[in-house]
Amino acid sequence: MKAVAMPTVSRVAVCGGTHGNELAGIYLVREMLKKRADGTEPVSVVTVMSNPRAAQLCVRYVETDLNRCFTRAALSAPVSETSPYEMVRSQELNALLGPKASMQAVDLLCDLHNTTANTGLCLITYSDRDWICLHICKHLQAQMASTPVRYVHFDIPLNEAYSLDSVGKHGFAMEIGPQPHGVVRSVIFSAMQEGVQLMMDWICQFNSGTLFEGGWVDVYTMVKNIDYPRDSETHVITAAVHPDLQDRDFCLLHPGDPMFLCFSGETLRYRGKEALYPFFINEGAYYEKGVALSLARKRRVQIPSVL
Amino acid sequence: MKAVAMPTVSRVAVCGGTHGNELAGIYLVREMLKKRADGTEPVSVVTVMSNPRAAQLCVRYVETDLNRCFTRAALSAPVSETSPYEMVRSQELNALLGPKASMQAVDLLCDLHNTTANTGLCLITYSDRDWICLHICKHLQAQMASTPVRYVHFDIPLNEAYSLDSVGKHGFAMEIGPQPHGVVRSVIFSAMQEGVQLMMDWICQFNSGTLFEGGWVDVYTMVKNIDYPRDSETHVITAAVHPDLQDRDFCLLHPGDPMFLCFSGETLRYRGKEALYPFFINEGAYYEKGVALSLARKRRVQIPSVL
Repeated sequence: MKAVAMPTVSRVAVCGGTHGNELAGIYLVREMLKKRADGTEPVSVVTVMSNPRAAQLCVRYVETDLNRCFTRAALSAPVSETSPYEMVRSQELNALLGPKASMQAVDLLCDLHNTTANTGLCLITYSDRDWICLHICKHLQAQMASTPVRYVHFDIPLNEAYSLDSVGKHGFAMEIGPQPHGVVRSVIFSAMQEGVQLMMDWICQFNSGTLFEGGWVDVYTMVKNIDYPRDSETHVITAAVHPDLQDRDFCLLHPGDPMFLCFSGETLRYRGKEALYPFFINEGAYYEKGVALSLARKRRVQIPSVL
Repeated sequence: MKAVAMPTVSRVAVCGGTHGNELAGIYLVREMLKKRADGTEPVSVVTVMSNPRAAQLCVRYVETDLNRCFTRAALSAPVSETSPYEMVRSQELNALLGPKASMQAVDLLCDLHNTTANTGLCLITYSDRDWICLHICKHLQAQMASTPVRYVHFDIPLNEAYSLDSVGKHGFAMEIGPQPHGVVRSVIFSAMQEGVQLMMDWICQFNSGTLFEGGWVDVYTMVKNIDYPRDSETHVITAAVHPDLQDRDFCLLHPGDPMFLCFSGETLRYRGKEALYPFFINEGAYYEKGVALSLARKRRVQIPSVL
């Protein structure tokens, strides 16, 4: 594979508190905001508290999920005094960091998230061919000793891409778990701090002309979501994730494997025909979205050397 | 020690959803409500969803923490249409299950809770001499193979006792962790189900005249709370629980042991003069209460045989 020359990554945004109860990103952004730039940094970094009202209240969102408000349609919808706070805020953030995927947008947008699922560190993107994001993932995988690092791909066209990270020219959510919402755990905070520092190190080296060797990265492409079993009348859930599956994010799930344990004691099994990789297993914020876990197909993607 | 003859435990209340985002108790109560009594049970059990509005919204409370509304003062305060929902609801529950600690009150009130802290199963009470509660604890300790069971004592006079379980003649919170709020984990649900079943088994045997041998139970009496380090101006927390302390509930904490790791990297140590037992370490709901952990003194309490 030929080496690819890529433009420098001059403007970087690091965002936290897009969900106001995901505390590692919130405290990391607050720490970063204390250290004001002195103008000598090799890269311009803008640090943003995405949803300050939700962070203040320690809730995921005030009126609607901010991280679903960055589709083209949502960003161009008329807003008024009665619009949900997050609909207004997404347009403010788009003006600050975008416009979405335009020439004026930040070169790289890293949005910090936490999950109750045992995901380790995931870079979640809308592209399986973004060499910058894939190289940063490869760098984190090589450098982080105690945290598994994975690349997750949502195959959604840019117009429909709904999350804040879709505003940058390159972008990803840096998702780390397990951590309860409304709680900060020191090892999760430290992993996030290390992940952001390694990302900045990579960008600085890349900008200064270092050639990064190509190679292979495992890409997990989201295939489908699976909901909890629910009562057909009340829609109340009737089972929890099975103990054999709980905390086994990114461990291959085979047809027939236990998936749920009903509160009544019955085991329900995975009925799919294809072995797939589960992730976001029992994420707290997804009960309301009807998602008990997501399933992904894994493949190895070859990435070129970049400079 | 002489055997003590105790009155039968005829009326039992099992309550869940006192905090609306502590899901194991909520789903267990829903399961129990499906199985209507057929009149042949040896014990009368009333099953209660304590805070249905908060459970519906999956939040700890709607206006104020219900589980702080059972002091004598709160239960006798005048309520009006503008009173917080939980102030009204506590008086309803007191009418249903009490009046608090009166002859008309239920004999035993078991209130189901979850915590993000790694507590295992705790029976939390206001008495270190309640032989019924202590015997139930001893029974659970003997029968539960995979969950540590502990007896926690808050030394608060009954008038000031603020939690729902103080309404019964005997009562405790059955607190199980770790589980994120807004999430149900199958092993935590199963442990709670087993704990309640073992409690009911003990009561039925006790009522039918079985003599239960006395013995010793370790009692953890709460001594004090410790807050997170905070910025003196903004009161924002500046540290997380130290990785060496996180998840080590009920493991003796010695003077000089690491307690917090600041977001800036500095380690803060336990400055007390006495080794004590930490619990509720990094409980999510206690950030707003200014509690990073509680500390307890342990002692062995001798309990008589009962029949």
